[in-house]
Amino acid sequence: MKKRLSLEEYAAGIRSGNRVVLSQAITLVESALEADQALASQLVQAVLPHTGQSIRIGITGVPGVGKSTFIEAFGKMLLDLGKKVAVLAVDPSSQLTKGSILGDKTRMEDLALDKRAYIRPSPSGTTLGGVSGKTREAMLLCEAAGFDVILIETVGVGQSETAVKNMVDFFLLLMLSGAGDELQGIKKGIMEMADMLVIHKADGDNLEAAQKAKSNYQNALHLFQENLKNWSPKVVLASSVSGLGLNQIWSLVLDYEEKVKFSGFWEAIRSEQRLDWLEDQVQELLGRAFLKNAQVQQLLREEKPKVKSGELHPGVLAHRLMDLFLN
Amino acid sequence: MKKRLSLEEYAAGIRSGNRVVLSQAITLVESALEADQALASQLVQAVLPHTGQSIRIGITGVPGVGKSTFIEAFGKMLLDLGKKVAVLAVDPSSQLTKGSILGDKTRMEDLALDKRAYIRPSPSGTTLGGVSGKTREAMLLCEAAGFDVILIETVGVGQSETAVKNMVDFFLLLMLSGAGDELQGIKKGIMEMADMLVIHKADGDNLEAAQKAKSNYQNALHLFQENLKNWSPKVVLASSVSGLGLNQIWSLVLDYEEKVKFSGFWEAIRSEQRLDWLEDQVQELLGRAFLKNAQVQQLLREEKPKVKSGELHPGVLAHRLMDLFLN
Repeated sequence: MKKRLSLEEYAAGIRSGNRVVLSQAITLVESALEADQALASQLVQAVLPHTGQSIRIGITGVPGVGKSTFIEAFGKMLLDLGKKVAVLAVDPSSQLTKGSILGDKTRMEDLALDKRAYIRPSPSGTTLGGVSGKTREAMLLCEAAGFDVILIETVGVGQSETAVKNMVDFFLLLMLSGAGDELQGIKKGIMEMADMLVIHKADGDNLEAAQKAKSNYQNALHLFQENLKNWSPKVVLASSVSGLGLNQIWSLVLDYEEKVKFSGFWEAIRSEQRLDWLEDQVQELLGRAFLKNAQVQQLLREEKPKVKSGELHPGVLAHRLMDLFLN
Repeated sequence: MKKRLSLEEYAAGIRSGNRVVLSQAITLVESALEADQALASQLVQAVLPHTGQSIRIGITGVPGVGKSTFIEAFGKMLLDLGKKVAVLAVDPSSQLTKGSILGDKTRMEDLALDKRAYIRPSPSGTTLGGVSGKTREAMLLCEAAGFDVILIETVGVGQSETAVKNMVDFFLLLMLSGAGDELQGIKKGIMEMADMLVIHKADGDNLEAAQKAKSNYQNALHLFQENLKNWSPKVVLASSVSGLGLNQIWSLVLDYEEKVKFSGFWEAIRSEQRLDWLEDQVQELLGRAFLKNAQVQQLLREEKPKVKSGELHPGVLAHRLMDLFLN
């Protein structure tokens, strides 16, 4: 078993902004060991009064859209404005692809080197529920450590976006010009979740196409109903090379914060997210306890093949498994 | 408690094709009473050897696309070909909207009156997992009752499509011409699931626009990778008024069946679906047992508001709830 700090040491280190302790604490959160998880829960609870002050921004887009360069450029601009920025990632596939996003920290070299920034690659977890729970805990630890803006990166492939949407205040979708959204593999459902579309790489020869894409997307967004938050998604051109749009994006985020806090939805959404998290956690723990049960395992081994072949009704086996588990 | 038949009476009635008994059996399947559910599971198990012979077709599309008229016209054509047709529905929202699909049987009057057809509206269930489990059981009962083709209708709004996709052999998406898919609210993810796009209402003044839409969709589909099944989605024009396309759709379905059975994917997909079903069922039962626990209920009542307000870490409460539940 790895060496662990005490609860007090973790909490004090985090509160003092010690990045080494923060990293160790996030490692604790990501641990699969039960003793670690119990300590991690206590730690999050201990720092809870010091969380919630940041702006949480989810950033998605398909591979190739330039998420890392965007986050680096946007993050550096935030540092220049005096903000402290943490970057986290959610990628349920990372245990297979060995860290497809944020895995290579050198992609954000400048940001990684700055003391006011903190970059953490995706945790490896067995399920999306597991991964997103860990990312939420890491996010709270970063807030307790004094980070003002949390950027949460996700891959643009579906499920993980919903998970990220459920943990952030603002959801930003990066797009490319010149390609239909079909080409970009963006699911319409993700476009509907976005508070902002950013047409990225709007520079050089791309600029004209980006401008055209912008008006196309603006038209498309008009078709969506204005959402409950009373915020209509914005479309912005941006370039991580020229810096175009980065300031505008941030000022729109602040605009959003003001409006949505005023309407009361900011806190309402966060409350909903906490309850979602509770539900995710319970489901995760229930599933884990169930699969750890030796009798369940044995019956599954024996009978699952019969379900697979169509010989045994899944409902019958599910009830038998439950009887074993509950008694 | 309502009067129930015996297991043998249900099974015999279903096997003889008695539609009244079939309906009673499906009511049993849909019951929330535990005694009913146990009997329902046994019943499904008892008829299991007589299931699996039908072709299961999922049909989706947004409201207004003409799902009911299509199913009526397509169903009648199948009857003319000597097939027995059952129509089921999955609509997780139906308990709120009071049966938005198939609720009004008169919409499929002709089909409903025919003895070789069977129409069953959406069950009301508390969760999508619950609803889809019931629909799967109803589907097996229909197969045991001798129906050759099962049409499963769903509303075009997202989650329920995935549930239906996971229980059918062939997934058909109804579209309208003249409207971009943005306008139709169709999520790209659903288009990717489809084995066939049907441009519906391709008649009268609409025909030309429908033809144009067909080639647009064919182009769009080329962008998707050919799926594992070695089947590229087809685009077909259809009219429930003129009958255009109905025969072609059926012959493509048979073509699909032949190809996918030959490649072994037909059975492979069904095996996967059975394991998915097992997992859904276990999750459903676990969640239900959890929420029925009196101590869990009490702690939730007391502590959930603290989670909601951000005072208590969801992970801490989840672990405390699990301790109560497991001990």
